[in-house]
Amino acid sequence: MKMRLFTPGPLTTDERVRCAMQSDWGSRDAAFIGLTAELRRRLLDVANGASSHVAVPLQGSGTFVLEAAIGTLIGKDHKVLVLINGAYGRRLAQMARRLGLSVETLHHAEDQPVDVERLAAALAADEAITHVSLVHVETTTGLLNPLTSVAHAVRSAGRLLLLDAMASFGALPLDLAAVPVAAVLSSSNKGLEGPPGLSFALIERALLKDAAGRNPSLSFDLYEQWCGFEADGQWRFTPPVQIVAGLVEALRLLEAEGGSAARLSRYRRRFERLVAGLEALGYRLYLERTLQSPIIATFVPPDGQPFDFMGLYDRLAMRGLVIYPGKLTEVETFRIGCIGALRDSDFDDLIKAMADG
Amino acid sequence: MKMRLFTPGPLTTDERVRCAMQSDWGSRDAAFIGLTAELRRRLLDVANGASSHVAVPLQGSGTFVLEAAIGTLIGKDHKVLVLINGAYGRRLAQMARRLGLSVETLHHAEDQPVDVERLAAALAADEAITHVSLVHVETTTGLLNPLTSVAHAVRSAGRLLLLDAMASFGALPLDLAAVPVAAVLSSSNKGLEGPPGLSFALIERALLKDAAGRNPSLSFDLYEQWCGFEADGQWRFTPPVQIVAGLVEALRLLEAEGGSAARLSRYRRRFERLVAGLEALGYRLYLERTLQSPIIATFVPPDGQPFDFMGLYDRLAMRGLVIYPGKLTEVETFRIGCIGALRDSDFDDLIKAMADG
Repeated sequence: MKMRLFTPGPLTTDERVRCAMQSDWGSRDAAFIGLTAELRRRLLDVANGASSHVAVPLQGSGTFVLEAAIGTLIGKDHKVLVLINGAYGRRLAQMARRLGLSVETLHHAEDQPVDVERLAAALAADEAITHVSLVHVETTTGLLNPLTSVAHAVRSAGRLLLLDAMASFGALPLDLAAVPVAAVLSSSNKGLEGPPGLSFALIERALLKDAAGRNPSLSFDLYEQWCGFEADGQWRFTPPVQIVAGLVEALRLLEAEGGSAARLSRYRRRFERLVAGLEALGYRLYLERTLQSPIIATFVPPDGQPFDFMGLYDRLAMRGLVIYPGKLTEVETFRIGCIGALRDSDFDDLIKAMADG
Repeated sequence: MKMRLFTPGPLTTDERVRCAMQSDWGSRDAAFIGLTAELRRRLLDVANGASSHVAVPLQGSGTFVLEAAIGTLIGKDHKVLVLINGAYGRRLAQMARRLGLSVETLHHAEDQPVDVERLAAALAADEAITHVSLVHVETTTGLLNPLTSVAHAVRSAGRLLLLDAMASFGALPLDLAAVPVAAVLSSSNKGLEGPPGLSFALIERALLKDAAGRNPSLSFDLYEQWCGFEADGQWRFTPPVQIVAGLVEALRLLEAEGGSAARLSRYRRRFERLVAGLEALGYRLYLERTLQSPIIATFVPPDGQPFDFMGLYDRLAMRGLVIYPGKLTEVETFRIGCIGALRDSDFDDLIKAMADG
């Protein structure tokens, strides 16, 4: 049975993406060097970053590129302010502290967006802060943070913004020529609808040029990873060739669909369909509607009835429909992803299956 | 045109391996948890390590798991002796120094195996050394190092051996019940003939249990990676689901072939065929025959004739035959891999194409 994944990624990939993964490639061969160049060019194009940023793909999961970016861009003489309203913000702070970096945090409730006034005050109060990190869409809940106003507040205070765009890249339009972001970090298997196994950074060229020799990790040194690509078009260490080929095909499909704006309206249409269907069954959104991104939605079960998530999960999985557990500690919730190569009718099937119990 | 890869990996995969990569998997779904459990069990079985070691897969390339193992197993109060006779030994020393670890090196010529008497003397001379690292097969040349005697020398001196088995795992039989190795590090895309994108460590259970809290890298903390698998069978961070599925299929094919001994004899048969064919054309092995592993072979071009590697490479690539450059600085060489899902006749085709010039 083919599984339909209503998850935040790994997600349901298009048949053409999986088909592109059916070849073997010599990782130092001209054909694969060409594929890598196309990958790097297309990643920049998605965010309109070709004139200001460079694309540095990295093997492994999204967490890896976050750690690589922190280690490459933030030094012992710097200090990072981590904006937190969910598990991924907390993880970033934890990761930076373990690396021995100087970390400050600005906590918000998990159902509240980052407060730009509190951010501006925190930056004004501590001149030592050099970098700020923001999670664009918190996968913990699906909450959409106010990127544009955060980015301008950070830039006008003379600091650098690192953006965890894991869940949003490819799905939410991002214009690096208009929104000042020093580094965008994301992965292959969310809004780009590629297979998992690859992450990437888009970093301001001048900033990365200054980052030589900073990262104690050889594997995670994005400066050297970039130099490797620039020197001969090859990866420093063995690349996941089938994943690269799958992601390049996924990027071609994104362009063919009409780019991020078209993709976002597809996700929004499904999100609206899903919310209408589940609200009719008594479920409700955890977040205020205006804060909820159409990437992944957090639902609260109907009031006053016992709710057994694993029972629901198993009944849906038997029909090939995979949903996602919640990640909140205080409220019982579950999550449903709206991304991936699903059809509108798949969402109707999910709603019907949930109605059947 | 289907490329036939005579490379050290990424290599030519079996059609059944690529077919296994055609599904999407929910990374927290029961079916994928089962696949991960099968992966971990089969990796241990390949090296007869189930009673002593635990298997910890890691996202990304082989270099990543080497850095992860060093950071997790070697502390600031330890000292590692790196045995070097090629580029991969040198890289390991560089990586450990960058992490701030205490490193000693024992250099050998690139055409000489590690000298066990020199090793024993070095261990006797420096009581501070706690760990020793060895590259089993140096991909720089294909040189096979004397694992068994090195392992016993290290263990009898009361030190711990970390084995870079990148090129050898799956192809050269390894019996962890008989050969004392504290940690074996390898990846999916060499002797196991899987797709690239996944690496793994087999670590003595008692040793890993003691490694809590040591690695400053969250992503590369193999203790926490292990705890994640033990807790709920899931990966801490997004796994490359298609690569996992492909590698599990490759491990099933290894078992069906008859295990490492059968695979080694397949590789040896091809290696002999290749050497006979190329020697008839005037090429010769760079290493002494007894030191050359049948994984990847380094060839020196015919004496007294001008040799244009890129010209040869391009002519072969136009026929779909991909060979590999040399990695030696002092001697002009090239390399041909004998691993992967190739047929004997593919090697005949390669020899014929090289004869045609």
